[in-house]
Amino acid sequence: MASPLNSSTQTGRSPWKLSAYLPFTDWLLHYRRRDFPGDLLAGAIVATMLVPQAMAYAQLAGLPAQVGLYASILPLGLYGLLGTSRALAVGPVAIVSLLVASGIGPLAAPGSSEYLALALILALLAGLIQLGMGLVRLGFLVNFLSHSVISGFTSAAALIIGVSQLRHLLGVQVASADSFVGQLIVLGQALGSTNLLTLGIGTVSLGLLLFFKRGLSPRLQRWGLSPDTSQLLSKGGPLVVVVISTLLVWSLGLDTQAGVRTVGAVPSGLPPLTTPALNLAQWQALLPAALTISFVGFMESIAVAKSLASKRRQRIDPNQELIGLGMANLGAAFTGGYPVTGGFSRSVVNFAAGANTGLASIITAALVLAVVLFFTPLFFYLPQAALASIILVAVTGLIDTDTPRRIWRYSRADGFSLFATFGAVLAAGVEAGLFLGIGVSLILYLWRTSRPHIAIVGRLGDSEHFRNVLRHPVTTAPGLLMVRVDESLYFANTRYLEEYLNGIVADHPDVNNLVLVCSGINFIDANALETLEHLQETLAAAGVELYLSEVKGPVFDQLQRVGWIDKLGKDHLFLSSHAAMAALSKAG
Amino acid sequence: MASPLNSSTQTGRSPWKLSAYLPFTDWLLHYRRRDFPGDLLAGAIVATMLVPQAMAYAQLAGLPAQVGLYASILPLGLYGLLGTSRALAVGPVAIVSLLVASGIGPLAAPGSSEYLALALILALLAGLIQLGMGLVRLGFLVNFLSHSVISGFTSAAALIIGVSQLRHLLGVQVASADSFVGQLIVLGQALGSTNLLTLGIGTVSLGLLLFFKRGLSPRLQRWGLSPDTSQLLSKGGPLVVVVISTLLVWSLGLDTQAGVRTVGAVPSGLPPLTTPALNLAQWQALLPAALTISFVGFMESIAVAKSLASKRRQRIDPNQELIGLGMANLGAAFTGGYPVTGGFSRSVVNFAAGANTGLASIITAALVLAVVLFFTPLFFYLPQAALASIILVAVTGLIDTDTPRRIWRYSRADGFSLFATFGAVLAAGVEAGLFLGIGVSLILYLWRTSRPHIAIVGRLGDSEHFRNVLRHPVTTAPGLLMVRVDESLYFANTRYLEEYLNGIVADHPDVNNLVLVCSGINFIDANALETLEHLQETLAAAGVELYLSEVKGPVFDQLQRVGWIDKLGKDHLFLSSHAAMAALSKAG
Repeated sequence: MASPLNSSTQTGRSPWKLSAYLPFTDWLLHYRRRDFPGDLLAGAIVATMLVPQAMAYAQLAGLPAQVGLYASILPLGLYGLLGTSRALAVGPVAIVSLLVASGIGPLAAPGSSEYLALALILALLAGLIQLGMGLVRLGFLVNFLSHSVISGFTSAAALIIGVSQLRHLLGVQVASADSFVGQLIVLGQALGSTNLLTLGIGTVSLGLLLFFKRGLSPRLQRWGLSPDTSQLLSKGGPLVVVVISTLLVWSLGLDTQAGVRTVGAVPSGLPPLTTPALNLAQWQALLPAALTISFVGFMESIAVAKSLASKRRQRIDPNQELIGLGMANLGAAFTGGYPVTGGFSRSVVNFAAGANTGLASIITAALVLAVVLFFTPLFFYLPQAALASIILVAVTGLIDTDTPRRIWRYSRADGFSLFATFGAVLAAGVEAGLFLGIGVSLILYLWRTSRPHIAIVGRLGDSEHFRNVLRHPVTTAPGLLMVRVDESLYFANTRYLEEYLNGIVADHPDVNNLVLVCSGINFIDANALETLEHLQETLAAAGVELYLSEVKGPVFDQLQRVGWIDKLGKDHLFLSSHAAMAALSKAG
Repeated sequence: MASPLNSSTQTGRSPWKLSAYLPFTDWLLHYRRRDFPGDLLAGAIVATMLVPQAMAYAQLAGLPAQVGLYASILPLGLYGLLGTSRALAVGPVAIVSLLVASGIGPLAAPGSSEYLALALILALLAGLIQLGMGLVRLGFLVNFLSHSVISGFTSAAALIIGVSQLRHLLGVQVASADSFVGQLIVLGQALGSTNLLTLGIGTVSLGLLLFFKRGLSPRLQRWGLSPDTSQLLSKGGPLVVVVISTLLVWSLGLDTQAGVRTVGAVPSGLPPLTTPALNLAQWQALLPAALTISFVGFMESIAVAKSLASKRRQRIDPNQELIGLGMANLGAAFTGGYPVTGGFSRSVVNFAAGANTGLASIITAALVLAVVLFFTPLFFYLPQAALASIILVAVTGLIDTDTPRRIWRYSRADGFSLFATFGAVLAAGVEAGLFLGIGVSLILYLWRTSRPHIAIVGRLGDSEHFRNVLRHPVTTAPGLLMVRVDESLYFANTRYLEEYLNGIVADHPDVNNLVLVCSGINFIDANALETLEHLQETLAAAGVELYLSEVKGPVFDQLQRVGWIDKLGKDHLFLSSHAAMAALSKAG
């Protein structure tokens, strides 16, 4: 295949620099003292967000609270050293936690020791997949996830997450259902046994969180605080909710006397050293979930990292990001954690609080470690309903109604991909739904290219420019037909082209010269070449000569190599459509 | 979605003519007497080829000889009335017979009554699928089979067919193996028990067939016969082999005395009326095979039909062809047959012998019916080795070494699809291999479009034509960069484009105007639109203005509809690159 890639070499980093593989050598070896205040503040603020979120997302994943905390120590340190983003905050996130729950759910009971063991394997597999993809430079694969698919997937996943937390908010005990609708039905049936105190705590927590999110920052600014400080303080909602609800349960003894479920005993001490089990059957069973987590985690992470980096004109290397995230997941697998990735909200806070280097992540990790070593007894009375409210408020931000509306307006096909993914995720589950959505988006693209737009063109006014005869006032020459095909020619559309051209020649019996304007043809595959050869013969038999104009360089090279240019005749090839018309209207 | 399809309405037949749905009304109602000699001769010659082939292919499919004959009566009549090709000879063919064997093989023992019942269901399903696809006009789906995939598939299938017949040639009894290599091993182990007389008959038959195929026609011409007559006589090889080998076995009693296996008793009389069983489990189990047979059968048939029709300037309607073939398969299902399609070699003979209308097919059917009614006892002594030799010679024509060489030379990607399909069919079987091949060819196409060719262009000499600065001597303007992207912009390549453009702007700090030349951009999906919006902002932040030139009509309409043209500014849009350069070099 002719390589159309030469032109890409000027983008991308030099692969021979040490910092390409060990990004920390860039900043750690010559750390600038003036970067430290930003890193310290950002690291500390993210830690106060991360501790409650980590426990909440662990709950979402069906894991004990400490697993979320363990996943917030070593993985952050490893990413801080190996990732290319200076502001990405790695750790447990909502969607990956949902994927963990849906991946392990069918294989083990939540809370069982087998469930924990499977979470470690999942982190190991996701880490190995990401590391491997990064090393063989497969980062581009994530490009095949279209925004439509991502938007539909994220909104549907947010709905599933939200519904999964309602049971904690209601204080009811229900089984996990297979589908979104099933879960709603199960919840509806359990409404009668709602624990009103739990619901009260959850509702108040929700109110507090929403106040912090929406109402606090404007008020603080009115009181004279700077916008930046107000924004950062408003991120303290989860921490405040955790503290207040814990104090409430502890002081009133709501857990034993009113049946409010709490986090309970969280072990103190260093994260345990764990070794994921080498059980091939389990590895195989978890492989689809691990693939999904690797892809989705990477996609979510790279989107945040890129958008933050572009604000400071820094560059993100997708393949090195895969390596950084892969190592973070391996770190989680060996220290009692579960799969992690870069999260949106914490990364934005990290960035806004002034994170300058990976040291911010390392500081966050150190603070979480301190919590795990000394403060876990404080979480004994933390109500699960408070954690559920933290998750609920976090995922409302993921439900996106603006993108679907905009995409649908622009293109029905893209809109269809979005709704297909959304529906498939709700109906068939997160993994199957995602891959169905990807399939739909690719098939729609192929379908589109299989029926290309074809226009008869003529010369625009006195210019040398050629446009569609149906759209512009153009000049054409008698006996000459100039046809522009707006698609590369490949197996799926060659028959369509052949039929179109044969039909158009039949409709114009006076035509004896046909120019195929190739400005929209970016490559011609082997099938299309055969079709062109065949077309030339059938047209010649009908008394029509075939000419080509505006053949692009790479296409020309390929046609030249197999000798078709010589077969067609060099005089049947024009650099521009203008030259073709000039030559052929004289001849005709 | 904007419809790019308007321009196609001038091709294709009017759907309101009766003859569009009942093609025979075109020729049967006003049959011209002068067409009759050609139809009669062609029908008779095809019948003499079809009788031995039908029995041979039934053997290949694991079915008794009469099933092949039954499949050569009603199906031919139905296709003759309902198909759009005047020369296509429908009936049992090698590759479909192989697909039948591989589809039913895992479900029943060859020769069992269940095996026969499943063959009827397979014909029914294939017929229903083809009929349904034709009615809802899905004929275009076959376009997604590239020539590379077809070539790789056909060659591999021919090898599998050839090896499957070696046991009959050697006169050994071996089990069917799952894979090509497995079958070779099994045969190798059975070599010791070769029946030498059987092998002798097979070898002599092979020699005779090859002489008829290669050596006879030139000799006949030297003896003064016309080339056409010589060609037609040389098609008599199978008939001669059947007659001679049958006489030999009968006269010397080789079947009972030397263990030469023969066809044995073939029932006389009309084809039985059969009703395929309505067994849902069996239908489900056969569905994949039925889908493959529908697709592959249609593809093989349409390729022959089109190539013959183009020689006489007749038109083939793919959807009506599906209806004709579907009805033929339904006919097979209800008269004790098995799946059929249009075969290559018999169709070519039909055409060359002068078939003018569907009557030729009907005459062939009548002659096969006469054979079934009166002459089946003659086949009792027909040795299986002779049939195997007929199959072997037929499939050598399917092994294609020229196409792979040519395709590989033209395009490595297309060549890779071909070899991947070939290898997958041999390794994973005919069905799985075919679909793997299709998948590979589509993924390679997507991969190619995900890394588009991008060129910086300049004005060619004094013309208004713009070409790649690396290939042509062109003029550029200072401060102005004109970049042509040779691919439609969609989700899989937008990030690539964004990185390229950001990189190129970073490499040219003096540039303040960037023109995106859109002549190769045939559509812009919703993701790409977002990328463009984002790109405009990042470029503006870097002091670079974004302009577009040569935006195609359908793309312009879509951008206009969402208001992006207004956002960009009408003055940032140029009809031609020439106009853009004129305006922006003045400005710079």
